[in-house]
Amino acid sequence: MRFVSRLLDACRKNRSLLCVGLDPDPAKLPVKDVFEFNKAIIDATADLVCAYKPNLAFYEAMGVRGLQALKKTVAYIPKNIPVIGDAKRGDIGNTAIAYARALFGYYKFDAVTLNPYLGYDSVEPFLDYKDKGVFVLCRTSNSSACDFQDLVDNFGMKLYQSVALRAGDWNKDGNIGLVVGATYPEELKEIRKLCPDMLLLIPGIGAQGGDLESSVKYGIDTNKERAVIVAARQVLYASPDKDYAQAARQAAIELRDSINKFRGM
Amino acid sequence: MRFVSRLLDACRKNRSLLCVGLDPDPAKLPVKDVFEFNKAIIDATADLVCAYKPNLAFYEAMGVRGLQALKKTVAYIPKNIPVIGDAKRGDIGNTAIAYARALFGYYKFDAVTLNPYLGYDSVEPFLDYKDKGVFVLCRTSNSSACDFQDLVDNFGMKLYQSVALRAGDWNKDGNIGLVVGATYPEELKEIRKLCPDMLLLIPGIGAQGGDLESSVKYGIDTNKERAVIVAARQVLYASPDKDYAQAARQAAIELRDSINKFRGM
Repeated sequence: MRFVSRLLDACRKNRSLLCVGLDPDPAKLPVKDVFEFNKAIIDATADLVCAYKPNLAFYEAMGVRGLQALKKTVAYIPKNIPVIGDAKRGDIGNTAIAYARALFGYYKFDAVTLNPYLGYDSVEPFLDYKDKGVFVLCRTSNSSACDFQDLVDNFGMKLYQSVALRAGDWNKDGNIGLVVGATYPEELKEIRKLCPDMLLLIPGIGAQGGDLESSVKYGIDTNKERAVIVAARQVLYASPDKDYAQAARQAAIELRDSINKFRGM
Repeated sequence: MRFVSRLLDACRKNRSLLCVGLDPDPAKLPVKDVFEFNKAIIDATADLVCAYKPNLAFYEAMGVRGLQALKKTVAYIPKNIPVIGDAKRGDIGNTAIAYARALFGYYKFDAVTLNPYLGYDSVEPFLDYKDKGVFVLCRTSNSSACDFQDLVDNFGMKLYQSVALRAGDWNKDGNIGLVVGATYPEELKEIRKLCPDMLLLIPGIGAQGGDLESSVKYGIDTNKERAVIVAARQVLYASPDKDYAQAARQAAIELRDSINKFRGM
């Protein structure tokens, strides 16, 4: 079954566009074991989300032990909830094949994020996995996003707009989406117009300061879906104490409900 | 001691601009154990190179076992030869901090490759490690490099040229270099003119078809150095048999000598 179908099924079943970012920071974890922490968060939120998104950096920073926890985490997530590996990889052909093998074959992510700087042949090996998904970085949520993504070409098109349109061209099998930061609502609105049917992965609400209402209103498609709203720190560290899982559940309920209110559902 | 000094010391001591890419492909390895293979290649070439460059993709594709071999490999490389982690990472601030911790703190690379798409704040956490180096992707060696890197902005500047100039601006501590593919000699020539003093990491000779002579002639600075010429498959798989290390040594000698001939040394 195609990634987009699995994602939409999860959105509808859980009535949710919320994706929890599983980004464990050792300095903030209320328990010692990363897998134990993730397991508790998953148990507390699996009926409230449409996807989970672990960012590989946080696991890599812990070394091999972290990556073992990542693999266990992906395996633990209920099969009906897709897992997006936030890897932001981008490399030349034969190396991209190796990354695809790592992310889809070894960790078994349902989708990954990719960086477009190297162009089509760095994305193609991932598209060959027809049942998997790819989210191409378009307008990222950080403040330096403008450094290169806003460069205007000689046709009056900004780099991130070119990326959006090209990714749309590459999307023959419907398995490509875009990453667009919640911190740039105007750009989000515009990208949704350029790409009315593509999945948008939207990080940047909460700690990064993105506005939830505009993220939802500008991010959703005409069916009020195909926008995946990411929250990480806001959910994971809702409480620093033993009740962290319960607090995460409460935070996720509030986010899911706010998102649904803003999309009028 | 600064990365650039350590690299130049290795270049001078070994009279070499050759960097061997340690990219083990299980389908091509003449022995089963990846670390054993790398160790034999390092033993056979450590007096012939200025750096080693493992690409993380090949290790990640083997899962945790591969990453253990990577860590052992970095630790095994003689201290006077810098190790460049070809990671091509690029992520927002707090995530970039985690990647820097993984690459510099855990694996202990001396330098890494980074993707510029997210702009300055995705590179900055790496620059905070003053004794480490960063190579920013500029013009990559793959055929789709032109997809976005050649977009011309409204000042008549191509994206990869903007990246080169910006990276030059960021290079306050002299710890930034650029990645420029050997497969694009004209662009290499031009980038060397734009950035006369920056380190250039030049992959793409051999299997990818880049021309060695133009890579060397256009890549070196006025002191005939600061160009790091990468060869991987050509050295690693010089022989498919038991004599692979000896064959790798022979291939590395020939490459080093050809490079020295082309730089007139």
